[in-house]
Amino acid sequence: MPDERDAIGIFDSGVGGLTVLRRIAEGLPEESIVYLGDTARVPYGTKSADTVVRYARACAAMLLARGIKLLVVACNTASAYALDTLRDELDVPVVGVIKPGAAAAVRKTRTKRIGVIGTAGTVGSEVYPHVIHALDPDVAVFSKSCPLFVPLAEEGWTDGDVPRLVARRYLEGLALHQVDTLVLGCTHYPLLKGVVGEAVGDGVALVDSAEATAATVRELVTESKHTRGGSGRPTHRFLVSDAPEAFARVGRRFLGWDIGQVEWVDF
Amino acid sequence: MPDERDAIGIFDSGVGGLTVLRRIAEGLPEESIVYLGDTARVPYGTKSADTVVRYARACAAMLLARGIKLLVVACNTASAYALDTLRDELDVPVVGVIKPGAAAAVRKTRTKRIGVIGTAGTVGSEVYPHVIHALDPDVAVFSKSCPLFVPLAEEGWTDGDVPRLVARRYLEGLALHQVDTLVLGCTHYPLLKGVVGEAVGDGVALVDSAEATAATVRELVTESKHTRGGSGRPTHRFLVSDAPEAFARVGRRFLGWDIGQVEWVDF
Repeated sequence: MPDERDAIGIFDSGVGGLTVLRRIAEGLPEESIVYLGDTARVPYGTKSADTVVRYARACAAMLLARGIKLLVVACNTASAYALDTLRDELDVPVVGVIKPGAAAAVRKTRTKRIGVIGTAGTVGSEVYPHVIHALDPDVAVFSKSCPLFVPLAEEGWTDGDVPRLVARRYLEGLALHQVDTLVLGCTHYPLLKGVVGEAVGDGVALVDSAEATAATVRELVTESKHTRGGSGRPTHRFLVSDAPEAFARVGRRFLGWDIGQVEWVDF
Repeated sequence: MPDERDAIGIFDSGVGGLTVLRRIAEGLPEESIVYLGDTARVPYGTKSADTVVRYARACAAMLLARGIKLLVVACNTASAYALDTLRDELDVPVVGVIKPGAAAAVRKTRTKRIGVIGTAGTVGSEVYPHVIHALDPDVAVFSKSCPLFVPLAEEGWTDGDVPRLVARRYLEGLALHQVDTLVLGCTHYPLLKGVVGEAVGDGVALVDSAEATAATVRELVTESKHTRGGSGRPTHRFLVSDAPEAFARVGRRFLGWDIGQVEWVDF
């Protein structure tokens, strides 16, 4: 399998990372990608740091066994808890979703007041304030966990009364802090961009970590001459640790096109 | 530990089964109980049958190692997929939450039209129609999965606009089928009884599986003379496979009183 041995590897706890795959594939259409959704252990966002690190290691090992050349941790919680460990332990470059999003937000803010929304795990880890302050210590960061956004996105309830009310309830506190930039710190949240934007108002710029991460991956692959060497058409492969049919069905909304075959892997 | 060796064992994927523990403790105040929440693998409701059976076996083994005298599978998804396997393999009586709820609904319905709500896993398994038809083949069963109810209950959003709208949206189809009885086929749902009752109207009787299951356990324990032999006060112990603090915090709402100490177990 020459294509897969030269692929970009991406893992996430489930379908959310497909928003990252989508942006990477758009920017690097000639690259092969192998995506692993750890659907047997989803969600990571409510689990402890130790548990998430253990799962992230297992996901990385599964993808490395397939010979990937670069690893994208397309899950904010796993990026928050496990990125340093993976970088220490692995021989391939490892890209997370947090630093690219944080850097884009720091470039974008004028008032130096940034909001961050994510899962309970991501927000509890305080990784965004940490990374943002390393880039610019003068920025004030206001965080809010939004646990209902993931099930709303997976249920496909991305507009209408319910998500609008949920978004308003979660985000009214952030509005009071007068942030001018808001980081969508969870790969599910781009699907709720519409209602989130409405809730915070036109004056607040939304930062989609998926886009920012894809830009980082594109630079890495092109600058380091890591572009695909093999001949033949690039492939996109999808692996999951549970329930491949549900992944294909729900994932379609996250990816934007049909997923096709999904392979079940046990690990 | 004489108390624990004589305890009733209960497991669930997370906090939901605490609604069952609560009813059992109310009916059998002299019994010791050991509760295991498999919070490292929560939720079960979106996972495949094979995976849920594997997890249920691991939970049962963990509780049996503590010497329990009776096992309650306080999770609808695990009861749907794993009850027969556990009964075949274990030497202690095993009680699930489905048959008690189904039997209570069959006793209650006048029009022989029963609605069932639960997770995608429980509804997809078709276990409720199967069990209800075995009790009375003339009953028509109408099922609906309500994936947002679990995160709403865990978030503590159990009344107000958002849960009311969500309940209305999920349940309007069931109302059209003119059911006169509705089974709350997920241990989280008793927390949403208020908005569910509003959405289906006064004419529909709600069946709480936690209550029905507790009645079955009470009969088993008292009739079989399985009442606690040891001296000393009965104890309630709580084990989780991840994040004990979050379990204690969220679980309080499900149990109705303080949980106290929660022990982390790795398995």
